[in-house]
Amino acid sequence: GDDCAVLPPSRRRRLVTVDPVVFGEHFDDNLPPAAAGAKLMRRNLSDIAAMGGRPSAAVVSLALDPSVKTAWLRQFYRGLAQTALRHGVRVVGGDITRLRGGLAASLTLVGEASPARVLTRSGARRGDRLFVTGELGGSLLGKHWRFEPRLAEGAWLARQPAVRSLTDVSDGLAKDALPLRPAGCVAAVDPARVPVSAAAQKLSRRDNLPPLAHALCDGEDYELLFALDGRADAARFETAWRRRFPKLRLSRVGVFAARTPAGFVNLGTFHGYEHFR
Amino acid sequence: GDDCAVLPPSRRRRLVTVDPVVFGEHFDDNLPPAAAGAKLMRRNLSDIAAMGGRPSAAVVSLALDPSVKTAWLRQFYRGLAQTALRHGVRVVGGDITRLRGGLAASLTLVGEASPARVLTRSGARRGDRLFVTGELGGSLLGKHWRFEPRLAEGAWLARQPAVRSLTDVSDGLAKDALPLRPAGCVAAVDPARVPVSAAAQKLSRRDNLPPLAHALCDGEDYELLFALDGRADAARFETAWRRRFPKLRLSRVGVFAARTPAGFVNLGTFHGYEHFR
Repeated sequence: GDDCAVLPPSRRRRLVTVDPVVFGEHFDDNLPPAAAGAKLMRRNLSDIAAMGGRPSAAVVSLALDPSVKTAWLRQFYRGLAQTALRHGVRVVGGDITRLRGGLAASLTLVGEASPARVLTRSGARRGDRLFVTGELGGSLLGKHWRFEPRLAEGAWLARQPAVRSLTDVSDGLAKDALPLRPAGCVAAVDPARVPVSAAAQKLSRRDNLPPLAHALCDGEDYELLFALDGRADAARFETAWRRRFPKLRLSRVGVFAARTPAGFVNLGTFHGYEHFR
Repeated sequence: GDDCAVLPPSRRRRLVTVDPVVFGEHFDDNLPPAAAGAKLMRRNLSDIAAMGGRPSAAVVSLALDPSVKTAWLRQFYRGLAQTALRHGVRVVGGDITRLRGGLAASLTLVGEASPARVLTRSGARRGDRLFVTGELGGSLLGKHWRFEPRLAEGAWLARQPAVRSLTDVSDGLAKDALPLRPAGCVAAVDPARVPVSAAAQKLSRRDNLPPLAHALCDGEDYELLFALDGRADAARFETAWRRRFPKLRLSRVGVFAARTPAGFVNLGTFHGYEHFR
């Protein structure tokens, strides 16, 4: 009801992220409105997870054609609000406006940085190992909206001093690993270690592209991708992970190195699906 | 470049607001792109002003048709960035996505509350006087994007204990005064005291509606509207205002009362332009 939402003061740094969902781009009539609303919230939650933070409050901006039904809107908001509630996020404000012939919703999520630190995309050094959570590829079959933002995992990673940089996989591992590269290094991935999802296998049976292509290029996985100090004991780190997150697969997929090791793929020279044609 | 923007910690409460500009609603091809960008920033600045706060950082979400020219986008952003700079706002993040056949830009502005207090729409009591800054009506002729957000004025009002509630005029005085009404009161306005702008006069010569109708109903004035304690010395308050803001007109337009005084208009029974037909 007021001109602004009011958030309490905080001794921690604030994180702010904004991501939209647009009809025809991020969802369409095949997706129930509640799922589209949930996706909007989850996309932004994943950005907070990718900095090791904790989400706190959101504002939503809706632009829609007058023909959009109230029932649609109610379901959309319900999906958004339920997802918010489950992650302790208060939806504190918003705005609705008219957009002829379209439907675009943008959410701004405010969070708090971990007291440990803010994990960014930069910080990796030569010799650091590249890890990814979960399984990759084929998100189009459902994961693109049903994914679980890796908030607990991101917060835990922020507390591990050997973790040097972090991001989430939104455009596909092949693209998202590149901004993490230290200067003078390649991002080299061992194809045998890439965690290919069952959905990627399924899509590959349809389109005859290798499952690995889907895993590396599909995007919208919303898994965490991070660099571990090359001098750290990786096996021990993996044990600590399994103890803390026994149900979530963790894969040591590659390394930042001066040259591409034999049998590895240099993601910098990797051009998406084309690589496999 | 990172998944979130990082803001420093603050001992003050944070204000968050979100407002869009949509092609066909808030601007069209008659408005230069830099003006549309400036308007987007100013609309949000006015919301911070309307709570007595100070703006600090913004994130922008753009959704646009692939046919939108880069030159258009550059000018739009320049207008936005220059306005941000002039008000000490850092644009810390954003997002661009595709929207077929449309152009919608949403800005989220984060600010700090005044150390004095947060002025909201509620707080007025029976007998409080209603004040408005500047002049009203006819914003379509230019003010709708060229207006000056009343940030210094809002911050000053937050420090005056006799000021009890505050908002900005975005939908027109006739509408925006209503949420300020105390329970059991009418918002009564003296038509003779409404500051009618030259633009309202000009429009009225075109469409034969009374200038007062434009002043009360046009909207997009982005002036401040506030309630002053009925027991306060209004003349003294006005003197203090003139000393601090000699160039900005201040009008004592009405009162919150149990009944509508003779010669006043009860805004609650006022139905926009219809009233004057």
